[in-house]
Amino acid sequence: MGISLNMRKMAYLKEGTAYQELARKGEGFFQKICEDPEIGFTELPENLIYVDHCDEALNHLPEGIETLYVLGIGGSALGTSMLINAFPDSCRRKVIVVDNVDSDTINRLLNQVNSEKSALNVISKSGSTVEPLSLFSTFFARFEKDLGRSEALRRVVVTTDVEKGVLRQLAAEENLISLSIPGNVGGRFSVLTPVGLFPAMFAGIDVVPLLLGAKREKREGMNRAVSGAVVDYLFHEQSRNIKVLFPYCDRLKTFADWYLQLFAESLGKLKNRRDRIVRSGQTGVVALGVTDQHSQIQLYKEGPGDKSFFFFTVEKQVDVPIPSVFDKYSSFQVLRGKSFAQLMGAEAEGTMQSLERNSLPIFQYELDNVDGETLGALIFMFEMQTAITGYLMNINPFNQPGVEEGKQIARKLLEA
Amino acid sequence: MGISLNMRKMAYLKEGTAYQELARKGEGFFQKICEDPEIGFTELPENLIYVDHCDEALNHLPEGIETLYVLGIGGSALGTSMLINAFPDSCRRKVIVVDNVDSDTINRLLNQVNSEKSALNVISKSGSTVEPLSLFSTFFARFEKDLGRSEALRRVVVTTDVEKGVLRQLAAEENLISLSIPGNVGGRFSVLTPVGLFPAMFAGIDVVPLLLGAKREKREGMNRAVSGAVVDYLFHEQSRNIKVLFPYCDRLKTFADWYLQLFAESLGKLKNRRDRIVRSGQTGVVALGVTDQHSQIQLYKEGPGDKSFFFFTVEKQVDVPIPSVFDKYSSFQVLRGKSFAQLMGAEAEGTMQSLERNSLPIFQYELDNVDGETLGALIFMFEMQTAITGYLMNINPFNQPGVEEGKQIARKLLEA
Repeated sequence: MGISLNMRKMAYLKEGTAYQELARKGEGFFQKICEDPEIGFTELPENLIYVDHCDEALNHLPEGIETLYVLGIGGSALGTSMLINAFPDSCRRKVIVVDNVDSDTINRLLNQVNSEKSALNVISKSGSTVEPLSLFSTFFARFEKDLGRSEALRRVVVTTDVEKGVLRQLAAEENLISLSIPGNVGGRFSVLTPVGLFPAMFAGIDVVPLLLGAKREKREGMNRAVSGAVVDYLFHEQSRNIKVLFPYCDRLKTFADWYLQLFAESLGKLKNRRDRIVRSGQTGVVALGVTDQHSQIQLYKEGPGDKSFFFFTVEKQVDVPIPSVFDKYSSFQVLRGKSFAQLMGAEAEGTMQSLERNSLPIFQYELDNVDGETLGALIFMFEMQTAITGYLMNINPFNQPGVEEGKQIARKLLEA
Repeated sequence: MGISLNMRKMAYLKEGTAYQELARKGEGFFQKICEDPEIGFTELPENLIYVDHCDEALNHLPEGIETLYVLGIGGSALGTSMLINAFPDSCRRKVIVVDNVDSDTINRLLNQVNSEKSALNVISKSGSTVEPLSLFSTFFARFEKDLGRSEALRRVVVTTDVEKGVLRQLAAEENLISLSIPGNVGGRFSVLTPVGLFPAMFAGIDVVPLLLGAKREKREGMNRAVSGAVVDYLFHEQSRNIKVLFPYCDRLKTFADWYLQLFAESLGKLKNRRDRIVRSGQTGVVALGVTDQHSQIQLYKEGPGDKSFFFFTVEKQVDVPIPSVFDKYSSFQVLRGKSFAQLMGAEAEGTMQSLERNSLPIFQYELDNVDGETLGALIFMFEMQTAITGYLMNINPFNQPGVEEGKQIARKLLEA
C-alpha cells in the first residue's frame, strides 16, 4: 500500500501561515471526530464483527446462488459499485446494483432473472426509502411466484438500522436474514458496514484488507486527510466551486463517483453551525483519464477559473505491450516499443503539465496500486477529509436537511 | 415523436426584451449555420448515403461476426455509446466501446476476445489519434496471431477522414473496408456520420428514424434550439457556470454524457472571435434521476447559486406495476396500486418543485418516448443549440485550440 499526495506546483501553499493555521485546526478536528461517540464511521476500521455477521449471512443463503440483486440507492449503492468495479478479477459471483426505478430497466431485469439461483439484498438505513421498498416488493413477488413463499424468503437479506424502522420489523416478523447498520453511521459513510461489505463478500472480494487499510490510514494518515481538507477549504474560499476528480484508472471510476457524492451531500449546505446563510459546497465532476481528456480538457484549460483538479495515477501492476504492426505508417511510430502503462502515464503527465502551464491548481494522488488496503485507505482518508473540511467551514457535514422536501412532495403526488 | 421544452416558472423570461432580441439573433444564426458550407453537421439529416455505405461495409464483413470492438475516443466513442444504450432491445449483436488505454481493462478484454467471431472498427477523424491507433495495433496483432493476416484484415473497418490522414492511407494500401467522415464535420458533431451509424447498424439499430427525426427537427425545431441557446446564454452571462442535466430515464444516461462533452468542448474557450480573453463555458454535470437525487439534491438545493437545471422526463411506453406484498408494513402503503412510471414521475416532479421553491432555474424537456426519431431530433437540436449559443457568445464553437498542448507534452514524454 502506498498513497502519496503530490502537491506539485501548489506545494508553496504549505509555506503560508494561513495553511499552517488551518492544518493545526484540522489536526484538532481529526482527533475530535475520532473521539465523538455520535460519529460512527471512524470506529469501523477496527470492527471486524461485521465481517463475521456477513459471513454468517452468506452461510444462511441457500446453495447455488449465483447472482445478488442489491436493492438500494445513493449511499446504499455507490459504495457497493465502488468495490465491485475496483476488483473485477476477484468477482466470482455476480452482483447487480439496482439503484433506479426506471420501468424499462426493471422490466428488462425481470425478463432475465433466475429466481432459483438469485438472492435479494434490500438496503435502507431508515427502512422507509421508497425506491428499495418498491424494488423489493417487485423482485420478491417474482421470487414468490417462481419458488413459493418460503423459498423466496430464504433468498432475502435485509440490511437496515440495527434497531429502528419498518425493514427491521419486517425482518424480525418474517424471520429473514438481516444485517445491521449502526445508528451513528450515516448512509454515505456506510460502505465499511454490511451495506458495502456483504455484497462485496458475496462477489468474492476479500474485505479484510479494506479494513486494514482504513485502520492504518486512521493511525498514520492524519497528515494526508488534513492536507486535503485544507486545500479543499482554501479553494472553496476562493469560489473555485468545481472539484474535478481525474482518475487515470478504469477500476477507480466508481470510487470517484462514490467520493463525489460524499462531499456533495456533506458539504453542500445552506447554513453554517451559527445559523448564518453560507450556501457552501463544491460540485464534483468525474473525468476518467485518458478518456475524458478528449472531451473535457478544452473547457478545463480555457474555460472559467472555477475549478481545482485532483488526479489519481496508479503504478500499474499489469501492463500490456503495444505491438508494432503498422510501424511503416508515421503516426504509429511514437508507440514503437511502448506499453499501455507508459502511454497512460505520459498522457496523465502531459495533461497535468498542460493545465499547470495555464496556472491551474493541480494535485496528484500517486498510488502504488489499487489493492484492498489502498482502497480502504482512500475510503477512510476521504471520509475524514470531508468531515474535517466541514468542520473548517463550520458547517455540519453529517446531516442533509435539504433532501426531505422533494420526498414529501413526491409522496403527496403519489397519494393524490 | 414529441419533444416540448417546458420553461415552467422561468416562462417569464420569454417576455423580456433581452430574451426577444437574443432569440431574433439566434434565429438568424440558425439560418447562417445551416447555410455555411464549412459547417457540415447540418447536412447530415438529409444524407442517406452514409447508411448505404455502412450497409455495404456490413455486407463485406465475414459471416458469423457477433461482436464489434469500437476503437475510438471522445467524439468517436460517445455518440456510439449514446445510441447503443438508448436502444438495448434492438441490439442483437454486441458492440464494445474501447475508449480508454488502461492496461488492466485491455488485458481483461484480450483474455475474453473471440477473434473468429469479432471485428474491429477503428475510428479517428485525423487518423493520428494515439489511443485508437495503439488499441488497433493490439487487437489486430491478436487477430493476426489467432487467424492469420488475411482473415484479420477482413475483420477491420476503418472510419476516418474522407481523404486525409494515415488511416486513410493504411485503409487504401491494405485494402480494408473503410468509411468516411466528411471534412467539414468535427468529431463531436459526427454521430450521424459512419462514426455512430456503423456501430449502431452493426448492433441492429434502425438508424433511418434517427435521421428522419433530425431532419424534422431541422425543419420545424428552430424555436426549440433557439430558446435553449438563449437560456444557456443568459445563465452563462449570470455566471451560472454549472449546467446540470437530469435525465429521468436510464436509456438517456449516455445521451446526457454525449451532450455534456458537446457543449463543454464547443463553448469552453479562452478567447472570443475578437481575440478578447473571455474564459467562457459551462461545466456539465449528469445526474441520473431518480438515482442521483439521493446523492446530489442536498448540494443542488442548498449549495451555491451557480447552477441551471435541465430535466428530461419521458412518458413511459413500458410500465411495471409495483405488487402489494408487504402492505401491512406502513412504509409500503404509499406504493399501493402504483407503478414504477408513476413513482418515477412523482419523484421527478417532487424534485423539480422542491428546487423551484428554492428559486432555482428549472427547465423541463418533456419527451413522449425515447424512439429513434426523438433521439435524432434531440441530437440535432442540441448540436444546433450549442452552435447558436457559441455565436451568441461570439466565440467559435467548432474549434478546440486548447487540446493540442497536452498531447504534445505526452508525445515528448513518450519519445524521451
